[in-house]
Amino acid sequence: MKIANMVGDRFKERPSDCVVDSHAFSVRGGYVKYVANGIYSLYPPMRRITKKIENIIREEMDAIDGQEVLFPVALPGSLWEESGRFESVGDELLRFKDRSGSQMVLGMTHEEAAVQLVREYGQTYTKYPFMIYQIQTKFRDEARPRAGLIRVREFTMKDAYSFHLTQEDLERYYDICYKAYNRIFQRAGVPEVIAVKSDSGMMGGSVSHEYMLLADAGEDSIVICTDCGYRANMEAAENKVDNSEYKGMEDLEKVHTPNEKTIEEVTSFLGVPVEKSCKAVMYQKNMTDEFVVVFLRGDYEVNETKLTNYLGEEIHPAEVNDESGLVAGFTGPYNLDAKCTVVYDASLDGIESLVCGANETDYHYKGLNIKRDIGDVEYVDVSKIKTGGVCPVCGKKTITVKRGIEVGNIFQLGTKYTKTMGMKYTDADGTEKNPIMGCYGIGVGRLAASVCEARHDDNGPIWPITIAPWQVHLCCMRVDKEDCKNAADELYDKLQKAGVEVIYDDRDVRAGAMFADADLLGVPVRVVVGPKALANGEIELSSRDKTIKKNIPVDTAVEEIKAVIDEMFAEIYSKVEE
Amino acid sequence: MKIANMVGDRFKERPSDCVVDSHAFSVRGGYVKYVANGIYSLYPPMRRITKKIENIIREEMDAIDGQEVLFPVALPGSLWEESGRFESVGDELLRFKDRSGSQMVLGMTHEEAAVQLVREYGQTYTKYPFMIYQIQTKFRDEARPRAGLIRVREFTMKDAYSFHLTQEDLERYYDICYKAYNRIFQRAGVPEVIAVKSDSGMMGGSVSHEYMLLADAGEDSIVICTDCGYRANMEAAENKVDNSEYKGMEDLEKVHTPNEKTIEEVTSFLGVPVEKSCKAVMYQKNMTDEFVVVFLRGDYEVNETKLTNYLGEEIHPAEVNDESGLVAGFTGPYNLDAKCTVVYDASLDGIESLVCGANETDYHYKGLNIKRDIGDVEYVDVSKIKTGGVCPVCGKKTITVKRGIEVGNIFQLGTKYTKTMGMKYTDADGTEKNPIMGCYGIGVGRLAASVCEARHDDNGPIWPITIAPWQVHLCCMRVDKEDCKNAADELYDKLQKAGVEVIYDDRDVRAGAMFADADLLGVPVRVVVGPKALANGEIELSSRDKTIKKNIPVDTAVEEIKAVIDEMFAEIYSKVEE
Repeated sequence: MKIANMVGDRFKERPSDCVVDSHAFSVRGGYVKYVANGIYSLYPPMRRITKKIENIIREEMDAIDGQEVLFPVALPGSLWEESGRFESVGDELLRFKDRSGSQMVLGMTHEEAAVQLVREYGQTYTKYPFMIYQIQTKFRDEARPRAGLIRVREFTMKDAYSFHLTQEDLERYYDICYKAYNRIFQRAGVPEVIAVKSDSGMMGGSVSHEYMLLADAGEDSIVICTDCGYRANMEAAENKVDNSEYKGMEDLEKVHTPNEKTIEEVTSFLGVPVEKSCKAVMYQKNMTDEFVVVFLRGDYEVNETKLTNYLGEEIHPAEVNDESGLVAGFTGPYNLDAKCTVVYDASLDGIESLVCGANETDYHYKGLNIKRDIGDVEYVDVSKIKTGGVCPVCGKKTITVKRGIEVGNIFQLGTKYTKTMGMKYTDADGTEKNPIMGCYGIGVGRLAASVCEARHDDNGPIWPITIAPWQVHLCCMRVDKEDCKNAADELYDKLQKAGVEVIYDDRDVRAGAMFADADLLGVPVRVVVGPKALANGEIELSSRDKTIKKNIPVDTAVEEIKAVIDEMFAEIYSKVEE
Repeated sequence: MKIANMVGDRFKERPSDCVVDSHAFSVRGGYVKYVANGIYSLYPPMRRITKKIENIIREEMDAIDGQEVLFPVALPGSLWEESGRFESVGDELLRFKDRSGSQMVLGMTHEEAAVQLVREYGQTYTKYPFMIYQIQTKFRDEARPRAGLIRVREFTMKDAYSFHLTQEDLERYYDICYKAYNRIFQRAGVPEVIAVKSDSGMMGGSVSHEYMLLADAGEDSIVICTDCGYRANMEAAENKVDNSEYKGMEDLEKVHTPNEKTIEEVTSFLGVPVEKSCKAVMYQKNMTDEFVVVFLRGDYEVNETKLTNYLGEEIHPAEVNDESGLVAGFTGPYNLDAKCTVVYDASLDGIESLVCGANETDYHYKGLNIKRDIGDVEYVDVSKIKTGGVCPVCGKKTITVKRGIEVGNIFQLGTKYTKTMGMKYTDADGTEKNPIMGCYGIGVGRLAASVCEARHDDNGPIWPITIAPWQVHLCCMRVDKEDCKNAADELYDKLQKAGVEVIYDDRDVRAGAMFADADLLGVPVRVVVGPKALANGEIELSSRDKTIKKNIPVDTAVEEIKAVIDEMFAEIYSKVEE
C-alpha cells in the first residue's frame, strides 16, 4: 500500500497525556484513535499488527487441540447469576438492561458462556478432555484506564477454556498450554516474557500464572529470586522477614512525640531503627464500613490483595472520624480502644522491642513486646516483599522486585464454575461429577503495545518481522526524477508480486519527513531508492534496528530483500521452544 | 479434526421453535447455541464457516483499496448526538451508562465512528478518495429476533465507509463496490443473489441497493419485472396502478350494510368489484398520537415505510377510541368529521365511482367520485405493489413479488454525516467542503444462514466448498476391523499433510448415525472407508450434493480427492465476474 493513501496522521510532538512510550508512539504513529476513556479505534497499521498476533495465537491454540468458537459480547445477567459473579464482581462488570427490561452484562471474561456452551455436550466422561477458545471483543469498565492500549476498557482478547475429568489431566494440559503461551510470546518477538505465579483473584481456582513482560512502564510488580529462579507476582509472593537481628527486650514506656507523625519521623526522633517500629495502616470493609487496622513493620507496605484474600471481603482505605475511636497518626496495638478488626503482619514476628502509636495524640510507646504486652497474636502475611528480601523457596536474601506488564494469564479454575452452574458428567462408574476447568487469556492489543514498549528507540517502534504491519518500507527519495520514480515503482511492483508486504512512500516530501514516518511505522526492512546510489545501479537496504545498512544492486534487490526477511524470521524462530 | 472430539451435539428431531430450515439445521447440526433472545454462541463448524466468509470479504475489500480498521463496540453517546441519531433512532439502539455515569451506546452501525476516525485526517482534498472497513461485532436491539442467525440482536458484520470529493467519484466507487459485492456472493456459492434498489431508511442518503437472496424464508419482499429486469425492494418500488377500466360516474348514495365489515364483505354485498372500493387504514403518529387515515384501493395494502417517509415521522397502528371521531370499519373520505391527517394513496387515482365507509356504523356510500364529492386531493404512493402490477420502469404489467433475505446493502450517504459531524476538507481552490460518503454492509452470520437456506436438502446443509467448515468428511465404517481402521487413519493423515481440511469420523457408531451426522455437517466431499470396497483396494467417494458417487483406488485416493475439490472450486469461480 502507498503511505500517501493510508488513513491516519503521523506527527513529531509527544502528546502531553502520554506517560508511557508505547502510548505516545501509538498516537504519534497513527496506530490508534482515542474515542472515549479507555476506548480506541484502530488505524490500519495497528489492525495489521493485531491480525498477525491473532493468527499466531490461533495457530498455537489449534496446535494444542483448541477448537475455535465465538461467544456473545452481550450476555444475559442470569448466566452471571448462576455463577454468583453477577453479585460478587464490582463495577468493572458493565450491567445494563435491554429494551425488554432484561438484565444484561457486557462480557469481561467468558467462563459462564463457556460452561453454557458445553454443559449439555459434556454429559458423559467419554467427551473429555476438550478445549474451546475464541478471539473477540471484551469490555471491562476499568475505573482508571491508562497507557494507551495497555489498560483499556474495550479490548480484543483470546480466551480459552479447557474441561477435564481429573486434576491430573488439568495439570497435564495446563503444562501444554503453558508451553504454547511461551511459543506465542516467542513468535511475537518477545521471548523475554516470563511466567510468574500469581494470585487468582476473582477468577477462583488455585494455581495460576501470569505472563509478564519486564518493562518500567508496567503497573505490576514481579518478584524474582536471582539465585533459584523463583518468580511470582507481588500478590503471590510470601514476604518472609528475617528479624533475627532485632532482639533485646526493653520496658514499655510512653513518650511524648509532638509533631512527629510519619513512622520515619518518630523513629528518627526516638533514635530507633525504622525496622524496630510497628506501623498502622487503616482500611474499612466495603460492605459494613467496619474498620480494619493492619500492624506491620515500619519499613514495609500492605499488599491489599493479600489483605482482601485474608479477610475474604473487599476493602478501601479508611476515612478515620471521631467516632471510630482511632487516633490517626498515633494508632498502635497497645491499649487500642476501638471497634475494629486487627491484623498483625508477619513482618512484626520476632521483633522483641517496638516503637508504636499510643492511641493518643502526640504520644508513642517504645519498648513494646507484643507477646509480653498484648499476648499471643496470629501473624499473617499481608505485606509486600522488597528487593533484598528473603526468597520463599531457597531462603536466601536474593529477591529483586521489577516492574512488568501482564500480557497473558493461565488459571487452574477447578470446579468453581461447573459446580455453581450445574455442569455434570456421568463417569465410567456411573457416578455424577463436575468437570474440572482451566482458563487461558491473552490480550491482543495489550501484547501489541507491550512489544512496542520492549522494542523501540527514541524515534518509534521496532516491530519484530512476525507482527510488523509490513515487512518492507520502500522510500522513493526523488519522485520528481523519472529514473528514480520508475526504479522505485518497479521494485514496489516486483516485491508485491513476490509476496512481500510493502508500504511504499512515493510522496514528494523531504527526506527527513519520510524517514521520521518510516521510524514511526517501525517496519523491519527499509529500502531507499535515491538518485546517488541508483547512478551506480544500487539501492540502500537497512533494518529498523540498525544492525543492517548496505547498498545492494537493483538487479538482485528482490532476492536480497527476501533473504533478509527470511533471516529475520529465522532469528525469531530460533528462540521458539518446542 | 476428529468428530468424536468436536464440541456440540447433533440430533434428528426438528426443534419446535425453528420455523425456517436454516435455523433448524443450525441447531440440529451443532452450529449454534441459544444464549438469549437473538443472541447465540457459535460452535466450531459455524465459526469455521464465518471465518471463511470473513476472509472472502476481506480479500474483496482489500482488492478495491479498502483499509481494514477496527471501531469500538461500545461508543460514547455524544458521538451519536453529533449526528442526531442518538435521538432519532428507536429502541434498537441500545443505550446505557458506564460506571462514571457517561452515556454510551452499543454500535449497531458505525458511520459516526468512521467519521470520528478520519475527521482530522481528511482535512485536505489530496487525501481523497479512501475507503475504510472493519469486520466486527454489532448489537441491534431488535424487538423480534427470529429465524436463528437470520435476524439476531448480536452479529458479526463487515461495514465499510468510503469518502469522496464529488458525487461523481462516489458513484464511480459505488459501482466498483457493487461489483465487489457480486463477487463476494458468487465466491460464497450463491451467485443468484441479486441487487435491488432500496429505501435508505434511517441511514440517510438517496441511492441504495440491497443484496437479496430469493428464499421463501425471507422476510423482505422483492419486486421484480420479468420483462425489463427492474428490481427493487417493496419500499422503493413505486406502485403505479392502472385504473383505466374503472370508469363510469354514478350518483352518491348511502346504503345500509349491516354486519358487513371487511371491504371484501361490503363490495360482495353491494355487487361491486373490490377494485372499485376505497379502504381506510388507520395509524397514529408516535410523537403526538395524532390519527392518520390512509385511503387506498380495496385490494391494496399500505407500505408503512413509504408512509413514514411521506409523513416524515414514525407511526404505529391506531387504537381507535370514541374520542377520535373515527368509526372503525366504516371510515370513509366523505363527511369525515375527525381530527386527523388524511392520506390518499395513488391507487385510488382515476376510479370514477367508489364504495367507501359512511363514517356511521352499518352504513357505506356507493358512487363516490373523489373529485366531484370531495375536491382536488393530493395522491401519494404509500401502497405495496403486487404481482401482476405495473412495472414503474417499462410500464408493462409484468411485476412479480418474491420473498428474499437481505444479505448485504450499499448506500450513497451523501453529506448527511460529514455535515452534522463537522467533517470538512479544504478544496484545491481554498474553499471548505463536506466530503461525500458511501457505506457498505454485509452480515457474516446471516450470509452463512442464507447460504444454508438456499443450499440444503431434507437432511442438512449442502455447503459450497468455498465456505464449507471442512472440505472432506472421512468416515471409517468399521473401527473394529484393523485393516479398515488403518486405511482410514492413513488416509486422514495423508489428506491433512496434503493440506486438505478433513473432519474424520472414527467413532464406533452405526452407519446410519454416521451418515446422518455427515449430512448435518454438509461437507462437500465425502469419503467412506468400508470393508467391502477395501477388499478390492477401493474406497467410496461421493459429494454432498449427490452429483458424484464412485469407488476410487486407495492408492490414488489423495490425488483424486484433491482433484474433486479443485473442480468444486473451479465450478464456483467460473461464476465469479471480473
